[in-house]
Amino acid sequence: MDIWRGELQREPVPEALYRMLQYHMGWADEKGDLLADPVSQGKALRPTLCLFTGEALSEARPGPSTSPSLSSGLRLRTGHSQRDWARALPAAAALELIHNFSLIHDDIQDGDVERRHRPTVWALWGQPQALVAGNAMRSLADIATLGLIQRGVSQEKALQTSSLLTKGYVDMIQGQCLDLAFESSLEICLEDYLTMISLKTGALIWRSMEMGALIACDDEDTIQAFANCGRALGLAFQIRDDVLGIWGDEATTGKAVGNDIRRKKKSFPIVYALEVAQDSDRQKLVDTYSKATLDDQDVQDVLTVLDKLEVANYAQHLTREKADLALREVSRVPLPSWARQEMEELVEFLAARQY
Amino acid sequence: MDIWRGELQREPVPEALYRMLQYHMGWADEKGDLLADPVSQGKALRPTLCLFTGEALSEARPGPSTSPSLSSGLRLRTGHSQRDWARALPAAAALELIHNFSLIHDDIQDGDVERRHRPTVWALWGQPQALVAGNAMRSLADIATLGLIQRGVSQEKALQTSSLLTKGYVDMIQGQCLDLAFESSLEICLEDYLTMISLKTGALIWRSMEMGALIACDDEDTIQAFANCGRALGLAFQIRDDVLGIWGDEATTGKAVGNDIRRKKKSFPIVYALEVAQDSDRQKLVDTYSKATLDDQDVQDVLTVLDKLEVANYAQHLTREKADLALREVSRVPLPSWARQEMEELVEFLAARQY
Repeated sequence: MDIWRGELQREPVPEALYRMLQYHMGWADEKGDLLADPVSQGKALRPTLCLFTGEALSEARPGPSTSPSLSSGLRLRTGHSQRDWARALPAAAALELIHNFSLIHDDIQDGDVERRHRPTVWALWGQPQALVAGNAMRSLADIATLGLIQRGVSQEKALQTSSLLTKGYVDMIQGQCLDLAFESSLEICLEDYLTMISLKTGALIWRSMEMGALIACDDEDTIQAFANCGRALGLAFQIRDDVLGIWGDEATTGKAVGNDIRRKKKSFPIVYALEVAQDSDRQKLVDTYSKATLDDQDVQDVLTVLDKLEVANYAQHLTREKADLALREVSRVPLPSWARQEMEELVEFLAARQY
Repeated sequence: MDIWRGELQREPVPEALYRMLQYHMGWADEKGDLLADPVSQGKALRPTLCLFTGEALSEARPGPSTSPSLSSGLRLRTGHSQRDWARALPAAAALELIHNFSLIHDDIQDGDVERRHRPTVWALWGQPQALVAGNAMRSLADIATLGLIQRGVSQEKALQTSSLLTKGYVDMIQGQCLDLAFESSLEICLEDYLTMISLKTGALIWRSMEMGALIACDDEDTIQAFANCGRALGLAFQIRDDVLGIWGDEATTGKAVGNDIRRKKKSFPIVYALEVAQDSDRQKLVDTYSKATLDDQDVQDVLTVLDKLEVANYAQHLTREKADLALREVSRVPLPSWARQEMEELVEFLAARQY
């Protein structure tokens, strides 16, 4: 936030604020000392989708790259000219900042004391400070988008991009609100659940691709195709996430098997199971999820019901379906071969990822 | 948020979200039923300053109005053509929404269960819901600013206005962070305190006038003059607020005398007293503010020290000084006589208000 310095005659910078933000991003320890080896900063999915889309649609169409492919850990390709994707960098940064803002607030809401193998911001600094830190992260996103014009994006497109970010953000909030409402209900139908994740997780993912497309090209059909692609991808991403939340390997996810069951999260497998289970299976689920807290046996009982109903298989089937749809949505958009290939690798990664 | 409807095939509107927002704004009761007689919605200071500045600087210069003056309750004047000030309405709405967002989150941070004689949002719906409601209010501000272009404001000015709002907001957050840091310290100097309120309260107030001026005119000196005016006005406003927080009349403020002392708030009178008190007076303050909770006698003891040091007098002197400065800042800007007069009435109201 240094760009605002000097506005007041004397302004003691609230170092504590930066410390919390740097800590959350995995760049510094809780004392504010920068880490020589930054810890996990997540997959950076949203900025990657934004920059990838921008690059794929940019005028320059270089040949296949030998740099690490997008799908192997979602790293940025380095084989191309920076001009191809760098215009969208402010938008990409804003997306990642909004996502991280939501994580800081989510941890407060959920009372989670750990994220990415480290104590959460509120667990270290308390809820009031974490609340402000999240809001600061959110406004850094606004500051980031102001950089679009400096990178040659027209005022009109900069405003449209801001507007898409706001739409994505508002949808995300509406999704969070639905999610909170679901907590106290066992009568959630699968359709409502899919709507909720389309908003809570999906909105920012689809806007990521839409923003990247908008910045790179003027063709409305193409921009819409990438928006639709992102919409399908968002669903695939979250359903896979829900599967990993129950059956993921602790070594890669950092969470014990059955973790989301123990937390009584109404994630896809549970919502689906509640919808299809009959008689005693359904009763078992309802009884278990009506308890205040769940023990190991409860978790095991739920896992048994899910196994019997083949929920994991169905979830993976649906993930595949949405992933295939994502690819179909952009099948008619002319793309260079490297982009088409990386797109397929990316979708494959998201549908089959272990973390 | 209806403007985003229809983006998803089927989207169950989270009614609970709107209910919380309408309730907080004083338009509805907690069940969501609109009130025939809306309760107090605050002074609407920020939007009023924005619209007043816009109108004062607009080309059309009508004669004196017979409508209720700005200073008597900060109502909007109705005697002029709407065109004079309506262009700035989206910015004014955004300012009020940002302010109210900060109130919802402030109440969570401070654990306050009552605001404007009603239970706070978190007290009714819980912290997680209130946190999301605040974030929603915040993003409605972003949506509001998008309306500037529809009202004929140029893309460039719309972007600049958004940028000013963001700056005001970021400063506000930095101020909140400083304020939280002050909670655990008795070594706050007056200068630091003034910096903190310049950020926490002042920033949005000065940006209100700056935004109104920017939307209405192109002269940089004039825009800067109103920004400086707002800066002084913000300080006057908050120091008066701090005085009312201790010596305000319960009937008009809704708070008991000494309320801010009981809450151990490090407001202007306390910071100033800690700076100037000597020997046993200072010791009394330090001892009292080191206690976990304060009883009636503690409050009385602190009031006695403040009286002895004539803190209220000094605070009012400083308020006057800042109020006079605010008027001087715009003294060289050519303004119609009605605007000059209302400006003086407004400043007088802010410096002497009882609520």
